[in-house]
Amino acid sequence: MSNSLDTIFISLKQAQARLAGENRAAKDKALASAAAAINRSRADILSANACDVEEARKGGMKESLIDRLLLNDKRIDNIIEGINIVIRQDDPIGKVQSGWTIPNGLQIEKVTVPIGVAAIIYESRPNVTVDCAALAYKAGCSILLRGSSSALESNKAIVKAIKAGLKEGGGIQDAVALAESGNRDEVDIILKARGFIDVVLPRGSHELINRVVENARIPVIETGEGNCHIYVEPSADIDNAVEIILNAKLQRPGVCNAMETLLVHKDIANTLMPKLAEKIAGKAELRCDAAAKTAIGSAPASLVLKDAVEEDWATEFLDYILAVKIVSSCDEAIAHINKYGTKHSEAILTNDLHSTEKFRAQVDAACVYVNASTRFTDGGEFGFGAELGISTQKFHVRGPMGLEALTTIKYLVTGNGQIRD
Amino acid sequence: MSNSLDTIFISLKQAQARLAGENRAAKDKALASAAAAINRSRADILSANACDVEEARKGGMKESLIDRLLLNDKRIDNIIEGINIVIRQDDPIGKVQSGWTIPNGLQIEKVTVPIGVAAIIYESRPNVTVDCAALAYKAGCSILLRGSSSALESNKAIVKAIKAGLKEGGGIQDAVALAESGNRDEVDIILKARGFIDVVLPRGSHELINRVVENARIPVIETGEGNCHIYVEPSADIDNAVEIILNAKLQRPGVCNAMETLLVHKDIANTLMPKLAEKIAGKAELRCDAAAKTAIGSAPASLVLKDAVEEDWATEFLDYILAVKIVSSCDEAIAHINKYGTKHSEAILTNDLHSTEKFRAQVDAACVYVNASTRFTDGGEFGFGAELGISTQKFHVRGPMGLEALTTIKYLVTGNGQIRD
Repeated sequence: MSNSLDTIFISLKQAQARLAGENRAAKDKALASAAAAINRSRADILSANACDVEEARKGGMKESLIDRLLLNDKRIDNIIEGINIVIRQDDPIGKVQSGWTIPNGLQIEKVTVPIGVAAIIYESRPNVTVDCAALAYKAGCSILLRGSSSALESNKAIVKAIKAGLKEGGGIQDAVALAESGNRDEVDIILKARGFIDVVLPRGSHELINRVVENARIPVIETGEGNCHIYVEPSADIDNAVEIILNAKLQRPGVCNAMETLLVHKDIANTLMPKLAEKIAGKAELRCDAAAKTAIGSAPASLVLKDAVEEDWATEFLDYILAVKIVSSCDEAIAHINKYGTKHSEAILTNDLHSTEKFRAQVDAACVYVNASTRFTDGGEFGFGAELGISTQKFHVRGPMGLEALTTIKYLVTGNGQIRD
Repeated sequence: MSNSLDTIFISLKQAQARLAGENRAAKDKALASAAAAINRSRADILSANACDVEEARKGGMKESLIDRLLLNDKRIDNIIEGINIVIRQDDPIGKVQSGWTIPNGLQIEKVTVPIGVAAIIYESRPNVTVDCAALAYKAGCSILLRGSSSALESNKAIVKAIKAGLKEGGGIQDAVALAESGNRDEVDIILKARGFIDVVLPRGSHELINRVVENARIPVIETGEGNCHIYVEPSADIDNAVEIILNAKLQRPGVCNAMETLLVHKDIANTLMPKLAEKIAGKAELRCDAAAKTAIGSAPASLVLKDAVEEDWATEFLDYILAVKIVSSCDEAIAHINKYGTKHSEAILTNDLHSTEKFRAQVDAACVYVNASTRFTDGGEFGFGAELGISTQKFHVRGPMGLEALTTIKYLVTGNGQIRD
């Protein structure tokens, strides 16, 4: 274990024990002070960010990734508003989930408590640093932040401001730490820190998530990979279906809840596909199976149309690309989704009750939609306030993750001398 | 991947997809039929068990372990009653945990669903085979049972009866499978079965649990290790405290919720320790720190009294041995527990409200007791019916685990054409 991380682990654990004893008012006050400190440190943060951006450009980073890295005054406003959202959220700690008395008179209460020390391993976006620090603090958890090396200077400046703010607000600054060596082995040390880190969240690419799952000896929450589908039935309203498809594909294709594959029932293919082709032409490429291609008929000149290959069904394009397959039944659509999906968000567009019930029951995903775009899978849209990410696993927490993801429970058992017979 | 396990994994996954669609009546009927089949197969099960016991004796297994392995008619009655308890329990699936409508009219429901395919890796006791199969079936989950090789013949006979019973009762027999090669590498294959096994539960020794945690690439629920403490304050009722201590140590020392270390406040040591020494003499050995030894004064002749060493504080004796330490404050007791405890069950005996609040808030354990024996941490005692084990982790499920541990949730989102702005 590296010396510096070793020290950070112990410090995070000790800070968490103290933070667990803080009430909501104290936590909110410290967070408000952190928000004020970020506001006050704009110049430092923007200047650090400019260094990161310059280095990234020198290294040849794509502009779409530069955009994720870039901060400006408006984005800092949003970051500060993110903290304010967390401040307004209920305290997730100390909720009595249930309580009962057993025959011998022992009273049992099931109460929410912080899960402990969380670690987050994430890629470029510096706003994640603030969102996660604020959510963890509100949930009474310490957090170890391990951002990408490309955002290191930005994250250093942000974390410096957060810690200064927490301290000024009477809070516990050691509850937030940045892993800042930038070495890759830092991640491996974090992933093996049994007894120090209670949960690790990877947020980023497929490769990052896989590396974490393969190497972690501590609990992991897998996030974000979304190979999402929309399945359209003959009974659906066709014009509305086209509108939903365009929204799910085009509104923000680079995010995990965007649609990647469209499944169309054969009985409606000849009606739906030409309309879709006309509207999506020039906006996204279609990768169609043979039946879908035939159903389009004479394609608009501006339509980029390719033959779908097996790999397309399993690909999260995160791009202006849509795979399309014609299916013969709801069962076939469900089987396709359960084979290729990532258990994120899946939608059926229909007016058929039996299909709806079957789809909802049999599709294995965090969020199953009827007659709506998959784009609503989001902590903010669901009303959870800020979010830690979207869990694609079934263990501990599933779907959009708010504060609850960082809690666990404790049974408080109160007696007056009971012994077991 | 071994061929036979490969086949079993696929079969379990397919069976689970069907089982997820079964209603409570169908699941209960199949379980009742499994209970009847076990009842009818007593002779086969007892004869298979006799082979296991004979082999174990030849191999020099300790009699205490032979006793865990041994089946008789009464134990089979208990196993059958275990199934009946599961039948009487509510269906954990399809519960709407919460539901709301977001501003654009999308209706969101959070509904419980089966977690999928579970695996359990466990040691001797054949009743675990039946309890876990019944709990998993009721929760709509397939289960892969991997018992110890010493119980293989017993487990084969039991699983054969369960599968026959499920089939006769119109149930899904492929939802239950036994890993029966007996090879150690079988465990490693199970632990790496990403995409097939959704959760693995190790039940058994410290070594088994560690091996699973180190090697698993699938979610693990750690169970059972219990280095439990009782801390006695000056304001406690001394006679009742002695009774609780004797109960927590002696009533069944080989189980995880038995007390291993007693912490006594210095102001009460001279009163408590002589009384305890007198009552525990001849029943359990004491391993005392210097202050505790002094406090005993003239020990009864039959008392086995040793000096505690550092290792004793970290040991789950599971035996007629009690470590004793004198502490100066509630804070010192809490620090000792959080350092050496396994987050299982911890008790304070007191009449002091401030100490009670501090102990409940700061001790990091699944179950925190006030004025009662730690022996109540048990699914049956808590009223959960049969139990899968006791989780000592904070992730997904904590403390005694009933059916809920095998569930996750799904968000059902219903709209009428909503797209995201």
